[in-house]
Amino acid sequence: MSLRIITTGGTIDKIYFDAKSNYEIGEPMVTSILEEGLATVPHVVQPILRKDSLELTDDDRQLIYDTVAAAPEQHIVITHGTDTMPVTAAKLKSIQGKTIVLTGAMAPARFRITDSIFNIGCAVAAAQALPAGVYITMNGRIFEAGKVRKNLELGRFEATE
Amino acid sequence: MSLRIITTGGTIDKIYFDAKSNYEIGEPMVTSILEEGLATVPHVVQPILRKDSLELTDDDRQLIYDTVAAAPEQHIVITHGTDTMPVTAAKLKSIQGKTIVLTGAMAPARFRITDSIFNIGCAVAAAQALPAGVYITMNGRIFEAGKVRKNLELGRFEATE
Amino acid sequence: MSLRIITTGGTIDKIYFDAKSNYEIGEPMVTSILEEGLATVPHVVQPILRKDSLELTDDDRQLIYDTVAAAPEQHIVITHGTDTMPVTAAKLKSIQGKTIVLTGAMAPARFRITDSIFNIGCAVAAAQALPAGVYITMNGRIFEAGKVRKNLELGRFEATE
Amino acid sequence: MSLRIITTGGTIDKIYFDAKSNYEIGEPMVTSILEEGLATVPHVVQPILRKDSLELTDDDRQLIYDTVAAAPEQHIVITHGTDTMPVTAAKLKSIQGKTIVLTGAMAPARFRITDSIFNIGCAVAAAQALPAGVYITMNGRIFEAGKVRKNLELGRFEATE
Repeated sequence: MSLRIITTGGTIDKIYFDAKSNYEIGEPMVTSILEEGLATVPHVVQPILRKDSLELTDDDRQLIYDTVAAAPEQHIVITHGTDTMPVTAAKLKSIQGKTIVLTGAMAPARFRITDSIFNIGCAVAAAQALPAGVYITMNGRIFEAGKVRKNLELGRFEATE
Repeated sequence: MSLRIITTGGTIDKIYFDAKSNYEIGEPMVTSILEEGLATVPHVVQPILRKDSLELTDDDRQLIYDTVAAAPEQHIVITHGTDTMPVTAAKLKSIQGKTIVLTGAMAPARFRITDSIFNIGCAVAAAQALPAGVYITMNGRIFEAGKVRKNLELGRFEATE
Repeated sequence: MSLRIITTGGTIDKIYFDAKSNYEIGEPMVTSILEEGLATVPHVVQPILRKDSLELTDDDRQLIYDTVAAAPEQHIVITHGTDTMPVTAAKLKSIQGKTIVLTGAMAPARFRITDSIFNIGCAVAAAQALPAGVYITMNGRIFEAGKVRKNLELGRFEATE
Repeated sequence: MSLRIITTGGTIDKIYFDAKSNYEIGEPMVTSILEEGLATVPHVVQPILRKDSLELTDDDRQLIYDTVAAAPEQHIVITHGTDTMPVTAAKLKSIQGKTIVLTGAMAPARFRITDSIFNIGCAVAAAQALPAGVYITMNGRIFEAGKVRKNLELGRFEATE
């Protein structure tokens, strides 16, 4: 069992540059989260994008799709901005024979208070435990692709119908 | 789907009392970890013991067994000291029809650097995703009860044979 | 001995709003920093502005001046954005009979890695220990108003002369 | 202006060893606290003891005395366990011509919630700002040696009239 962790940006990796007073996307934080979690599970981290998920284009989603499809591993975690995470998840549904889990964070991993570490834990376990398919792990829950949305007012993910 | 989270003590909940210069077991930290993780997964937290796992007696393990067996939920997470976590896991194997996941931490959840948040994330997802059985999630890996030990020198869990 | 702590905004208090993907100024963090520091020193916290210091107007600086001048306390700490902290410090120099210490942070207090707690500690002690005058405490150093600048390239404060 | 920071152990530097389930004294944390505080103030860190302050002997206190007396710097910070910090402070009072500030922490610097960063900030500024003498900075306050005690019930330092 080996995991491939593909990073695409999003709030989880946001960093603050003082001079500009705005966030930009930094180095993937999943690496330090796994270190702090004392993770010994075999894995590779593959950064492919550094974007807010509202700015992901069709080409970007195709790149994510192609990267997952070409991965030799069967177990895939994708870190992704939350706003369009359900869109990317739906796009990946046609990939067969892989367990693909998307996650991200509502508060940056560089914050003292953040959901990112818990979310990565959920995703790493879900990618190993679930049957082939595409899923989102947020809020300690496991959602199937195509049956999940982000509730913007509550800032939480929820199942549709 | 609802989770029952049973807490038994262990390093994850250790607290430091200045006057005595030693650790004792504090309030279960899983509650604040789930809050910070923005968890909306339905769950109850049930504290039953506050012990270092080296001090767990046969009676204590029977209490854990009985508590799990009596739980109305099918999905169970147990926080537990690491030293005898494999012993307790093995003891629970005869419980049928439940997915039971034990986890804990090498460094207390009250530490700035701790594996506890990541581990709880792994356990929460694994308890929802895995088929009935007894498991340990540590180091980002999922171990089956009876096939896992703690490597004391490395401070890591590993599969046996 | 009683301290008045006047907050004006700046990076130290910046907060991240997910929906908008940018920082804004939040509640003054000095209150929680003092709590975590177990501070028993008598003090009041008085928030008067919530601005990035690049956006402070002449009227804002006059408000800071008037607030300090009117304070019944002799010992004053001001939290302030770093970019124009030396400008405000120079403006306050004509206030007599008070020890006035400005500080702030290069990384928000809500970050896991931040200089804000250390800086507030320096300012609180300096405001009690120094003779009347206007000072900046940043980088563990004490600078006199009018003899300090922010080195933008290095992101550090340094003495002019 | 250059600071000498002498470390003697105490809660601030305590570390937890899982196998033994008790604290011992680790590497001085003042170094990482100064780094995180972006401190550019010239300083040297000199570790001389790693003891709980209840275990300090007369010989240990003589070592602290001799180290301070021999230091080429005029500005001295000493990190020290809290329980006998006032005893050591009183012992150092006969050293002339130096500003000596003792501090420590009620909660270890390795904890997520700790007063250690704030306390080090206070001590670093106080050692630069105060006239020659021996002081303790705890709880955001500055106490003179010989006029301070630790209130064990409250876990706070207070002046003796």
